[in-house]
Order: sequence, then structure tokens, then C-alpha cells
Amino acid sequence: MPSFKTSIRVTAVDTDAAGVVHFSNYFRFFERAEEEFYRALGFSFTDFHSRGLWFPRVEAFCQYKKPAVFNDVLEVEVTVDELREKSVRLGFTMLNTETRDFLASGYLVVVAADKQTRKATQMPAEAFEKLKTYAKQVL
Amino acid sequence: MPSFKTSIRVTAVDTDAAGVVHFSNYFRFFERAEEEFYRALGFSFTDFHSRGLWFPRVEAFCQYKKPAVFNDVLEVEVTVDELREKSVRLGFTMLNTETRDFLASGYLVVVAADKQTRKATQMPAEAFEKLKTYAKQVL
Amino acid sequence: MPSFKTSIRVTAVDTDAAGVVHFSNYFRFFERAEEEFYRALGFSFTDFHSRGLWFPRVEAFCQYKKPAVFNDVLEVEVTVDELREKSVRLGFTMLNTETRDFLASGYLVVVAADKQTRKATQMPAEAFEKLKTYAKQVL
Amino acid sequence: MPSFKTSIRVTAVDTDAAGVVHFSNYFRFFERAEEEFYRALGFSFTDFHSRGLWFPRVEAFCQYKKPAVFNDVLEVEVTVDELREKSVRLGFTMLNTETRDFLASGYLVVVAADKQTRKATQMPAEAFEKLKTYAKQVL
Repeated sequence: MPSFKTSIRVTAVDTDAAGVVHFSNYFRFFERAEEEFYRALGFSFTDFHSRGLWFPRVEAFCQYKKPAVFNDVLEVEVTVDELREKSVRLGFTMLNTETRDFLASGYLVVVAADKQTRKATQMPAEAFEKLKTYAKQVL
Repeated sequence: MPSFKTSIRVTAVDTDAAGVVHFSNYFRFFERAEEEFYRALGFSFTDFHSRGLWFPRVEAFCQYKKPAVFNDVLEVEVTVDELREKSVRLGFTMLNTETRDFLASGYLVVVAADKQTRKATQMPAEAFEKLKTYAKQVL
Repeated sequence: MPSFKTSIRVTAVDTDAAGVVHFSNYFRFFERAEEEFYRALGFSFTDFHSRGLWFPRVEAFCQYKKPAVFNDVLEVEVTVDELREKSVRLGFTMLNTETRDFLASGYLVVVAADKQTRKATQMPAEAFEKLKTYAKQVL
Repeated sequence: MPSFKTSIRVTAVDTDAAGVVHFSNYFRFFERAEEEFYRALGFSFTDFHSRGLWFPRVEAFCQYKKPAVFNDVLEVEVTVDELREKSVRLGFTMLNTETRDFLASGYLVVVAADKQTRKATQMPAEAFEKLKTYAKQVL
């Protein structure tokens, strides 16, 4: 299955007094990679929002192996681990681009939802079809 | 003139690899103090929002004297430096609660605006009257 | 088993354009509750740091049920789900203080580590003993 | 005088419930542009840090003209407005890359300081010389 890769530079504010990237920021990096992935797939957020859709997260997980520090360039790989009609589980793996050290991995479960009712709803067909070409499993 | 004081505990994510609070977070502490101040004055954000108002910042300034570190308790004092019909300049002073060291001071200029048109508008009368009791200058 | 509770007010910067608290900030709220918990137990971070110890997170998980919005007061409950000699799994449950709606739950696995070697190490005895009085399981 | 330009994509967490980029994040964007600028000049942070230097901010200012929203690409221009032996005032201008709308401008005053004593100190000669080629004023 194909995957998507992007790189993120660690900036000062991403770190904390322990000298390493704060653990909560890995989730922000995951989301940035997710957004880049969608853009690469040609998703139009503006279009989705104007149709009253949003994509809340219902689960988030990360396992930390090695710390990242200021100025590191991180390679984030996104995989589509499970695709359902109303949700998708995206997997993330993070490496240090230079050393190739494995830093962290995790996932996000994202649901298509109606902005008004806040209920889960069918994913837009074009988004589903595009994600499908990356999906390890369609359930 | 009276002023408003609140205290904020420095948490891990507020700091960066230099071991001190990241400079951008002082603005977040200012805003937190501002929100507490409004609450103490009895402002209803829900009410303002439902009337289509929001309060964007048009200027922000901070001067840093001494760093704050993890676990410090900061005392933030809010003053109403200039009150206008459509805007207010709030002053902020930050001390270390324990050592009484002066850490930073700054200001925010906040404008009452219409959510739709994004144009400046009259501040709600009850908000103006309450801020007036704290105002060093009414212009 | 006893648990620890603290409350956190949602501030503007905690939210995102979807109008709700950004999912990454739940982890920051968990950590803030963790820090308050340690303080309530009488842990001295300064003392730990001066002994060359730090407490990196090796796993983080959150499940989101209902969104929180600006100005909400969140009640965060901390439980000690598993205590080991070198690590602790802390559980977190988040409610809306006013409506008592269940918002989210999750956990953090925190390891005692040597700052120099970055290897896992024995938790300080006094910290272990204090956490033990809250522990559902000691492994 | 030459200037340095970089671009930054607005991600979800940069926005708040007002639907626009949170005002504190402009300072984070300024700093990201500053870091890119230094990298383009060939500054070695690792080298500076190993010589016991850091670069705290002593003043930060921003004026906001138009809001930025999720997914916007911002163009940040950095100028060296005033260069002194121990400090530099960097100017920042932010545009919307697509619409060319002027969004915000501001500055940071950054001081070279000794990590131990936390006192201002001479800027490293090679950094000074490189910044000089961009400086509007050397004082």
C-alpha cells in the first residue's frame, strides 16, 4: 500500500524545559501531516466546510521511543490503517530525517460529522475513494 | 484606579528548551488574565457572541525583564489604560508571586467588532460602563 | 482507591476554528492535572531535577466523547492505574463541571529516567510510596 | 537592503474559536521565520549553545490588520531593522501569499546572552557580520 510522507522542522516553541519536543506536540505534528496528506489527495476543506462537515478526532494514541530536539527535521509517514464509511484510522510513524532514528508512532481515529447535529455521517464519496487507494483495510 | 489581579501556574508545556517560559506564552497569560477580568466584571461572552460580537486584538506588546520557569506562580495585574467607544487598551504587569520579582509588562489593544462585517463597532454599553470604573483614561 | 480531582477553565487559545477544544490540548490538560496531583502529594520537582531525574512520557492515549468549548470549566480526575518500580500509568477522566457530561478519558505512561543517560531508573522511594496509596495495581 | 522571506501554512491548531489565527501565534510565526533566516545565514545554534549562548527576546510587538484562516499560506518577510553589538531588532511583515493582503507587522528585540549569568553579551562575530549585510541601521 502507498503511504504519504512529509517533513516538519522542530521550532523553539515545540520544545519544553526538558530540552525535547513536548509530548503533546507529536499529535500536532500528526495532524499537520494529515492535513498535508489531504491536500496531496486534493481534498477541499473549504468545500467540506461549506457542506456542513467537520472531522473531529475520536481517538488519539502515541508511543514515544526517542526524543526530538530543537532544529531536528522529522519525517512523518501517514498510512490509512482502517477505512470505514464514516471514519478513518490514520497511522503515523516519525523518524529523524538525518539519523533515521525511529522516534515515535501512533494513530488518530477521525470521524466525518455533521457540524449542526455533531453526529457521525457518511464521508464524502470523493474523499472515501481517494483514501481507499491508500487503505490497508476497508471495513 | 482599581486593577484586577489573577495568578497563573507555569506548566511544563509553557516552557521551552531554554528552560524558561516561551515569550509567546506571556501573551496567552495576558489573555487568560483578561478573560478572568471580564468574568469578574460579569461579562457574558455567550451573550456577546449571540449578539454577533467578537473582540479581536489589533495590537500586542510585551517587554521581558526576568524569565519565569516551570512551577512558578505568576501574578498578573490587569489595568484599563485607555477606554474608547470601540476599543480598550489593557495593561498587564507580571510578577513572580513568591519572590515579587518583576518579570514582564505589556498591553493589548482590543476592539469590539461585528462578526459578520469584521468592522469595529460600539462596545456593548454594559461592558463599557464596567470597564469605565477601572479606566485610567476615557477617550 | 482514592483519586485526585482538579478543574481547568477553557481559554480562547485552547479552542480551534471548529469552535471546540483542540484534541491535542486534552493531553496538556492531563499533564496539568498530573502536575497538580504531584504537588498535592508533596513531590518536589526541583528536588527531583537536582538529583538528575526527569519523567518522560512513553505512551499517551485519549478517547473523545463530547467537545468542550470556550469558557467551560473541566473537571479532571486522575487515578493511578498501574504502578511499577520505574513507571506509572495514570488514568484521566474529564467532565464538564456544570453539566456533568462525560467529555473524554485517557492515560499517560510516565517513566522515571536519568537525565544524563536517558535510561529508565528506579522511581524515588518517597514518590513511589505516595503514588502507592492511590494505586489500583502495583506490579 | 536585502530581506529574507519564508512561507508558513496555517494549521488547525493555530486557529481559535473565532475562526482565525490566534494572535499569540503570530509571534510563533515570527520566530519560525527568524529561525529560517538564521539557518539561511548559516548560523549554527548547536555551536552557539555549546559556547554557552542563548538569545532571549526582550521586546515583542505585533499590529494586526486582517485575519488569517485555516489553510492560508502566509508569507513572512524578515528585516534587520537595528543591529547593535549585543542585540538586534528584527522586523516582520506578514502577507497572505495568494491574495497579497497585508495581514500584520511587528518586531522582536533579541539579545545575545550568557546562559549561566543570564547577562547580555557580545554577539558572536560571525553572526554579527552576517546580520550586518541585512541591517538597515548599525548602532
